[in-house]
Amino acid sequence: MLLKLQHTVSKGYSQVKLPNNFAFSPPSRMSQSKGTVVLAYSGGLDTSCILVWLIEKGYEIIAFLANIGQEEDFTEAKKKALTLGAKKVFIEDLRKEFVEEFIWPSVQANAIYEDRYMLGTAIARPCIARRQVQIAIQEGAEFVSHGATGKGNDQIRFELTCYAFQPSIQIIAPWRMPEFYNRFIGRTDLMQYAKEHDIPIPVTPKNPWSMDANLMHISYESGILENPKNHGPPDLFQMTTDPSKSPNQSDVLEIEFKKGVPIKVTNLNDKTTISSSLELFEYLNKIAEKHGVGRIDIVENRFIGMKSRGIYETPGGTILHHAHMDIETFTMDREVRKIKQGLSITFSTQIYNGFWFSPEGEFTRHCIMKSQENVEGKVQLSVFKGHVYILGRESPKSLYNEELVSMNKQGDYDPSDASGFIKINSLRLKEYNRQSKMNPK
Amino acid sequence: MLLKLQHTVSKGYSQVKLPNNFAFSPPSRMSQSKGTVVLAYSGGLDTSCILVWLIEKGYEIIAFLANIGQEEDFTEAKKKALTLGAKKVFIEDLRKEFVEEFIWPSVQANAIYEDRYMLGTAIARPCIARRQVQIAIQEGAEFVSHGATGKGNDQIRFELTCYAFQPSIQIIAPWRMPEFYNRFIGRTDLMQYAKEHDIPIPVTPKNPWSMDANLMHISYESGILENPKNHGPPDLFQMTTDPSKSPNQSDVLEIEFKKGVPIKVTNLNDKTTISSSLELFEYLNKIAEKHGVGRIDIVENRFIGMKSRGIYETPGGTILHHAHMDIETFTMDREVRKIKQGLSITFSTQIYNGFWFSPEGEFTRHCIMKSQENVEGKVQLSVFKGHVYILGRESPKSLYNEELVSMNKQGDYDPSDASGFIKINSLRLKEYNRQSKMNPK
Amino acid sequence: MLLKLQHTVSKGYSQVKLPNNFAFSPPSRMSQSKGTVVLAYSGGLDTSCILVWLIEKGYEIIAFLANIGQEEDFTEAKKKALTLGAKKVFIEDLRKEFVEEFIWPSVQANAIYEDRYMLGTAIARPCIARRQVQIAIQEGAEFVSHGATGKGNDQIRFELTCYAFQPSIQIIAPWRMPEFYNRFIGRTDLMQYAKEHDIPIPVTPKNPWSMDANLMHISYESGILENPKNHGPPDLFQMTTDPSKSPNQSDVLEIEFKKGVPIKVTNLNDKTTISSSLELFEYLNKIAEKHGVGRIDIVENRFIGMKSRGIYETPGGTILHHAHMDIETFTMDREVRKIKQGLSITFSTQIYNGFWFSPEGEFTRHCIMKSQENVEGKVQLSVFKGHVYILGRESPKSLYNEELVSMNKQGDYDPSDASGFIKINSLRLKEYNRQSKMNPK
Amino acid sequence: MLLKLQHTVSKGYSQVKLPNNFAFSPPSRMSQSKGTVVLAYSGGLDTSCILVWLIEKGYEIIAFLANIGQEEDFTEAKKKALTLGAKKVFIEDLRKEFVEEFIWPSVQANAIYEDRYMLGTAIARPCIARRQVQIAIQEGAEFVSHGATGKGNDQIRFELTCYAFQPSIQIIAPWRMPEFYNRFIGRTDLMQYAKEHDIPIPVTPKNPWSMDANLMHISYESGILENPKNHGPPDLFQMTTDPSKSPNQSDVLEIEFKKGVPIKVTNLNDKTTISSSLELFEYLNKIAEKHGVGRIDIVENRFIGMKSRGIYETPGGTILHHAHMDIETFTMDREVRKIKQGLSITFSTQIYNGFWFSPEGEFTRHCIMKSQENVEGKVQLSVFKGHVYILGRESPKSLYNEELVSMNKQGDYDPSDASGFIKINSLRLKEYNRQSKMNPK
Repeated sequence: MLLKLQHTVSKGYSQVKLPNNFAFSPPSRMSQSKGTVVLAYSGGLDTSCILVWLIEKGYEIIAFLANIGQEEDFTEAKKKALTLGAKKVFIEDLRKEFVEEFIWPSVQANAIYEDRYMLGTAIARPCIARRQVQIAIQEGAEFVSHGATGKGNDQIRFELTCYAFQPSIQIIAPWRMPEFYNRFIGRTDLMQYAKEHDIPIPVTPKNPWSMDANLMHISYESGILENPKNHGPPDLFQMTTDPSKSPNQSDVLEIEFKKGVPIKVTNLNDKTTISSSLELFEYLNKIAEKHGVGRIDIVENRFIGMKSRGIYETPGGTILHHAHMDIETFTMDREVRKIKQGLSITFSTQIYNGFWFSPEGEFTRHCIMKSQENVEGKVQLSVFKGHVYILGRESPKSLYNEELVSMNKQGDYDPSDASGFIKINSLRLKEYNRQSKMNPK
Repeated sequence: MLLKLQHTVSKGYSQVKLPNNFAFSPPSRMSQSKGTVVLAYSGGLDTSCILVWLIEKGYEIIAFLANIGQEEDFTEAKKKALTLGAKKVFIEDLRKEFVEEFIWPSVQANAIYEDRYMLGTAIARPCIARRQVQIAIQEGAEFVSHGATGKGNDQIRFELTCYAFQPSIQIIAPWRMPEFYNRFIGRTDLMQYAKEHDIPIPVTPKNPWSMDANLMHISYESGILENPKNHGPPDLFQMTTDPSKSPNQSDVLEIEFKKGVPIKVTNLNDKTTISSSLELFEYLNKIAEKHGVGRIDIVENRFIGMKSRGIYETPGGTILHHAHMDIETFTMDREVRKIKQGLSITFSTQIYNGFWFSPEGEFTRHCIMKSQENVEGKVQLSVFKGHVYILGRESPKSLYNEELVSMNKQGDYDPSDASGFIKINSLRLKEYNRQSKMNPK
Repeated sequence: MLLKLQHTVSKGYSQVKLPNNFAFSPPSRMSQSKGTVVLAYSGGLDTSCILVWLIEKGYEIIAFLANIGQEEDFTEAKKKALTLGAKKVFIEDLRKEFVEEFIWPSVQANAIYEDRYMLGTAIARPCIARRQVQIAIQEGAEFVSHGATGKGNDQIRFELTCYAFQPSIQIIAPWRMPEFYNRFIGRTDLMQYAKEHDIPIPVTPKNPWSMDANLMHISYESGILENPKNHGPPDLFQMTTDPSKSPNQSDVLEIEFKKGVPIKVTNLNDKTTISSSLELFEYLNKIAEKHGVGRIDIVENRFIGMKSRGIYETPGGTILHHAHMDIETFTMDREVRKIKQGLSITFSTQIYNGFWFSPEGEFTRHCIMKSQENVEGKVQLSVFKGHVYILGRESPKSLYNEELVSMNKQGDYDPSDASGFIKINSLRLKEYNRQSKMNPK
Repeated sequence: MLLKLQHTVSKGYSQVKLPNNFAFSPPSRMSQSKGTVVLAYSGGLDTSCILVWLIEKGYEIIAFLANIGQEEDFTEAKKKALTLGAKKVFIEDLRKEFVEEFIWPSVQANAIYEDRYMLGTAIARPCIARRQVQIAIQEGAEFVSHGATGKGNDQIRFELTCYAFQPSIQIIAPWRMPEFYNRFIGRTDLMQYAKEHDIPIPVTPKNPWSMDANLMHISYESGILENPKNHGPPDLFQMTTDPSKSPNQSDVLEIEFKKGVPIKVTNLNDKTTISSSLELFEYLNKIAEKHGVGRIDIVENRFIGMKSRGIYETPGGTILHHAHMDIETFTMDREVRKIKQGLSITFSTQIYNGFWFSPEGEFTRHCIMKSQENVEGKVQLSVFKGHVYILGRESPKSLYNEELVSMNKQGDYDPSDASGFIKINSLRLKEYNRQSKMNPK
């Protein structure tokens, strides 16, 4: 049942390669059906209500739930979706492709939105939506649907990905439909609807904020956090230990990179060594969680033009960010780095705005990838009480030349060259001085 | 004696306004003098030897020692310079102008070189050199001199500033003169020379690295740090407590900004309040020192094209960087921020390379200053174990609209607008998909 | 009747200063009126039909027709609007403010969209819309309306300007309303409607393309031009002579700039001299028209994501572009120029996309204006057969130093400095060579 | 004799592949020889004097003269060099590689320095110098030499290329050596020296300006042109007809591109068709020459920081620039184009400053090349009286969608989407307005 598509992204994201035994099946539907909807299903109250509501509206539902590392009882969720009326349920483990195709390129790029946000939610959306629209293609569904709100970024990231792969897809976004949002004004309305439609109601009371979790990060926003002055409550964080309660002993890691991607982590304290992508990232998460690394509280600018406040924890990603930045500067030429820095900012905005799968996203990733060819070597760092400290680095491909830079050796360097260099660089300044004196303001 | 120039930087840095009672005195010199040199004097072994060596070579020396917050016995240094033969000594407290004219603009800019270095040395050089060349103009000296090495950035920052203010100035850089550097190959040669010329020899043994300190930061480099793999030794840091030994209780501060500049700091723990510039910055240094904030270990790209390894501590500056970034994003329009982010990177490179006083430096600062008009409000943050945590913020000029962004209120926002927004944004992606399908790769 | 608002743009575009004798009059309307609409009226078939249609729908209409230099019988247009039922008509001569507040800043910026388009339509829209929304405010109208299509840029430029000045304004864009565009599918439907409602029908047959004209340029698009392979027909151009029929004798002009703005034009052939802004620009238009200067045929990328084909003529603007570029490079420091070049590209996109009045537009213009402080001097150029040839330039503020650059004089320049400069610049290249040889690909 | 190296640039410029029959021969020299110099020889007075002067100084000379399309009697030049004492002479036809490896990438990049200069000299230097340093490696010469002046850009472009390929190379730049430039202060000194050393003296009097010619362009500078106000004399131009004397009948061309490179030119007037690279470029030169296309007169900023005045003619390159720009915008996604526009500016500065062969040059070229994958199709244009007029274009890979953009068809486009798009885009503007009103300036 769980047909796995082979998608060969590198050959252009518009090409979805279908498995050999794939036969396009026209959407079988009852005469009265409005068509089939692949719904991004989370198992929670919102998307459960949406599932039932869509059936009520005459659609057939395929529920799709991606495992991108969030805590979830997937078996239970599948059962629930089927119980609620889904004609099919796809539960897919996308964790490995999330790490390799989305987190790694972001690490290579040093992707950071507005100097602070590590884009943990933003890179998960195209990963999920790509698979969802592939299922729609494969299952002959004309519709996809999701439970994202009408004010956020995720609706955009989700839908642009769908359009990029399947321009003819039709999207049902209930939270943007007056018929839906006027009916479900608050959580009470959803609870009421759930009760009326035998939708299981969450037993634990909802936190006064919302949360989005995946392998890379958890975001917290809305509710009491909407007042940007309010401090995040101490019990907010799920993914990292409070630094004030974290161990008094650091972990010292050595991370090895090749082409800008981490290929091996060694814990120098206990000699743990990990080198497969998903496990490696999970291990960094574990270490960072232990030491309370990766918490930020920011106000950011959404694509739709609002400012919003978010609290994020990105444990493993934060360690990697520091380590990659270090090995990159160590091995990359200064001027290439400058250009790449500009591309990274551009890329980060693309990701944030939902253009991972776009001509410009594809182009920028290609250029960044090219810049990483020599980004290779080992970084040693210490993780302690919420912070990452770089300790040292080495590389077979470094452009660092210890003899050249040494204060004690002259090396192949003639200090008098610097005199000429400085004098030539001063020419413009002297001319400006001359001109300013002739034209005092 | 200590004639204080009024320099009116805002009117163009090429104009040095002399005090009313100023009379230009032609350099009085003995017939055999080669002229007068204003020497940037530190009181240490190197510049003491240079002082004596220059006299030996036939120059008259005015020693200049700027107080920019480094630990130093200035009275002692003055006495020493006079003893060694300087005909005049200027000791000047530049700390307030260093904070207001150099640190504040850097904070406004979020100035960071290569994503990590906060430019603590780089912004001190133009502050010192401007005063030095002003003294040269005032005293009728044709020469300035300094003890910077021939491989570093400081020689450039120093000299470009001098040329910018006084194009005709002549610069003596002994460490670039074969006559000098071939004579003084190692520290032993300097010690020997000192012994022969009654130059007091430092009693404490030299660390196996070099150090540069000012109000904003200390840098450590060369010596054993030249091997980029070597970890910085635990006793390296002078300006911050080891985070593992710092208090188990955070300090919570509220920093208030106006036009992007901090105007008030309140410690919410003990209600300490400070609002004058120099004291405010010193207080932040104190808090950051206490909690071990601001240490980094990086490899960077020098202007002359070498990679070098530096360890830096920037305690107060690190707190301000986080706080300013937060209030800026809170109050600045998204698109203005994007442009300003680009200008900041440009400005940081200008500073690093020594072009603080240059047409482009002046222009960039002006633009950045303009961007700060509404950067106003209060940021609350916690300082703990080497890290700064933003907790919340408020501003009378924020562009944040709590009602607009709220998940629970619709506000003046129609979610269906987002549908059109997304569809229009998908047009390019659909066309690209169409074109790609017609031209499979 | 023709109440002229004093708008003080420099103080922030959100402030509309009303004349002293201004009294806010609440919109008088009949009980059944849906409210008052200020309609951007052109006098043509489309907006005449819209005017009548809006009345039919229950609105009261204030027609607004801006004179921005297009050929038009404004008296006739006013009469027509009143006849069709407008309760008021504003005909306003915005030519001078169009030149001074919109064309001049574009000249200062060297504003060019996608390397070719001089933005003649794009800068006219905010000029017109600002006045229109001011009238709406003044007249107490809740609505504004326009005849721009739903696929173009102008709807965006128009409406963003309105929202920027009056966020609560409501916009009626008939060509985006199914009720309207489904009724008026082709020109025939409009003609039919006009006939039925006594709307005068144009006597001259419509060209198989559309046109937009103002003081700065005429654009031609759609119709037969939609096929990007089709050549523009020879009789297309209204604003410039066919270069093959233009005079065989050039005009030689001297244009004088101050702060990047042309302040005087002298025709060196006949000594004509003009120095007031509007007349100066009209004169350049005249000269350029005579010599067929300023025609381009391009495909461009619209803000909504489509590519479209446009043919443009920008006669006087093209001359100014060449002249300004020349005097700017002559007087502006190289590094300032680089930064400004980036700002110009950013600004051009802002203008194109309709963000003239926006935080970022305001900021960018401020920065560009700052860069123009020393852009002063005279450029001599020849206009001939469709082309502009720069001949020479002079300036009291140039950074050009004839002695310094001379091949025959050494000036204050030591050629051996260049050796050091080159060697230092080669350091990175040598390290890269070393690293490449150690790691052959 | 004319040993042709196979250089495989694509594999990294640091690798010079030597021919199979190559045997490294240690520089044979007489005991008193200081070593062998590969001299970039032009056949003119300057480099002839340098050749003899270097021999006088004790060097052995290998003269190297590259044919990059300049007018020259190469056989005569070879004879002359041998007569003057060169021990070997290399005359090499680099025209094809100049077109394919240097001009084509510049066309792909739309490379333009400071918005105007097409870099005709700048791209020739690395082409020549690469071959020169390859000869030095092959012939075991420790030195290279050239006749470029000490104030210009060419010395830098030349030498950086040499260092990039052979870091240990030693460069003799006589015009930067006091011994040389103090001896040869003016042309008279060179003439005198030539007379004394039997160096043939040019019979034609030297123009009062200097000139540099190659296949792509001729530059004119210095002498009477150093006064930036002086008009270029009518008899200056060698490569293009005076537009006032050019034909009254245009040539209409169709240029076909593939991956951003012209692969075929058809003259639609006479059906001439050309498709091999060198011939194609020469043909465009011929057509442009005939119609006087490609003349500019500019002031530019040299890398060393001076402003200089240059007059350039770039006939064929100008046609290609217009044509490529057109097909590129037609086929390239808007956002990719924006990024590529930034890269082009960066690349142009790299080229101008002599960093064609550098890590950043290699990287930027790679990215630009990637952007050209779909830049394919045909452009029709008219060449007439100094100007190039684009007439139309077509492409199998265009992102232009005639149906989508049509004013008369709705296509797959819902105009009401634009309403949402505009409203969402206005959100920021409304917030800014709100904030401005609350905080009037």
